[in-house]
Amino acid sequence: MKDLSGFIARAKECNTGLEELPTLTPFVVEGKEVGKLKPKFVEHVKRFPEVFVVEGQGASGRVSLAPSLDSCDKRSAAVAGVLAQLRAEGVITGWRDELYPVVPSYYDEPLLLVERAAATHLGIKAYGIHVNGFVRDPATGAVRLWVARRSLTKPNWPGKLDHIVAGGQPHGLSPRENVEKECGEEAGIPPALAATARPVGAVSYLTISATGYKPDVLFCYDIELPPDFTPTPQDGEVQEFKLLPLEEVANIVATTTEFKTNCCLVIIDFLIRHGYITPEQPGYLQLVSLLRSGDCS
Amino acid sequence: MKDLSGFIARAKECNTGLEELPTLTPFVVEGKEVGKLKPKFVEHVKRFPEVFVVEGQGASGRVSLAPSLDSCDKRSAAVAGVLAQLRAEGVITGWRDELYPVVPSYYDEPLLLVERAAATHLGIKAYGIHVNGFVRDPATGAVRLWVARRSLTKPNWPGKLDHIVAGGQPHGLSPRENVEKECGEEAGIPPALAATARPVGAVSYLTISATGYKPDVLFCYDIELPPDFTPTPQDGEVQEFKLLPLEEVANIVATTTEFKTNCCLVIIDFLIRHGYITPEQPGYLQLVSLLRSGDCS
Repeated sequence: MKDLSGFIARAKECNTGLEELPTLTPFVVEGKEVGKLKPKFVEHVKRFPEVFVVEGQGASGRVSLAPSLDSCDKRSAAVAGVLAQLRAEGVITGWRDELYPVVPSYYDEPLLLVERAAATHLGIKAYGIHVNGFVRDPATGAVRLWVARRSLTKPNWPGKLDHIVAGGQPHGLSPRENVEKECGEEAGIPPALAATARPVGAVSYLTISATGYKPDVLFCYDIELPPDFTPTPQDGEVQEFKLLPLEEVANIVATTTEFKTNCCLVIIDFLIRHGYITPEQPGYLQLVSLLRSGDCS
Repeated sequence: MKDLSGFIARAKECNTGLEELPTLTPFVVEGKEVGKLKPKFVEHVKRFPEVFVVEGQGASGRVSLAPSLDSCDKRSAAVAGVLAQLRAEGVITGWRDELYPVVPSYYDEPLLLVERAAATHLGIKAYGIHVNGFVRDPATGAVRLWVARRSLTKPNWPGKLDHIVAGGQPHGLSPRENVEKECGEEAGIPPALAATARPVGAVSYLTISATGYKPDVLFCYDIELPPDFTPTPQDGEVQEFKLLPLEEVANIVATTTEFKTNCCLVIIDFLIRHGYITPEQPGYLQLVSLLRSGDCS
């Protein structure tokens, strides 16, 4: 793989819509910006002035919470009520019953907790864990990567290729606990094996989509699996697992949009860290930069 | 190592002096910015108007080359004459007889070549290669890192700790060729072993020092060395090599300034990629970001 333009194109697909940035209104809690809302969603929350206080619109405007909501619990409860109403109206779809913390950056205490399905509408930072599950040929050292095909019934990205294990980072679990939990739930990786997953860094990106603002950070992991281990779909989210030569995975990433878009960043990071993409290939440094183009905090 | 504040401090030490940025004058060749000069160095080049054209000062000013210098060869020769004069006057010290390409970004054709000792004065991008040479205990998997102590007679960073192999990236060699050459010259690593060095990414930083503007990019490599291999100083630049447990190296980085500053970034990157620093440690994402705070292009 001498030409990196396909990888650069995939990385750029994770960072689109930025021309809309000036139209987005900051979401501010306790004086700290924690998200951004599209004009349409500002109109929705404006209908609930006892919870959301809207002042102006766009980059110079501000959406905040009523001052009486002075604790994480009170804020979470009040916002949950609004989100439930917007769900009932069909504005928010893909409800998960999973709470995301709303934070200025990852290690801050959550200012409130919100349903995951509302994350992009509110433009809050969302964190995830992505695991590269690989097998190394003991004789040649050649690497093969386990790839999942997402179920056709999944609400988002149905039928797309995915990591062996990946998931959103919910409130109340550490990234490692989440990795080990998802290893079991998504691929039937037993606890002792899951415990060998190794954190290897993070990638970040920023997309403004039809739904909203997505400043996402993914914690990346590598897990080397024994050649005789076969992952098995556990929870109906994965249709099948396939073990593909790394060159074939690289080729799929570079020449197609078969993979769920953000998986491409994590695979490109793997290809760079494992030396399959090299500094001699023009675009190498651009690619290294593109892997962390979002606010990685 | 649960507290990352020492690592964050080291990473920040590579990114200092930025408050001086508005006082620096862009160096522009063929309409492209390729560097920045401190006020004192602008005064020096101003004395050679047949080569350097100075218009204004500071961020809104511009240092360019005379329009008659319309090729890489002509520009390189004319600038070399000025730099030789400034060397004779003692303005430029630490002459290396090594040419650096002057480029907007790494994969561009060089607009001119300049002596390495002038790189920071002109504020051009400088690239380097840094190699983590490590040994893995076959029984426990524990990692030890080879560390060099720089010779006390080196003009810069005498006596500081360094990588087993590291060097500037000169014109006319690929990063891989440079790694293999330096492996032999600096540590006596034989060609077949040097060929196993693996590119693993890049780090970048931006320092404004007493001498000038340093927007540096380091290509990072890992080389796993056999337990029975011992590096040997070849060219007098290294005083001694020591094999230290990774925890000890991490501790030196976190609690002292014993390492040459930019080596710390490459070691922290190693600690992150190899899972010795984990997402559970507050500051992890800040550290990931700090590793590429310079213009990585």
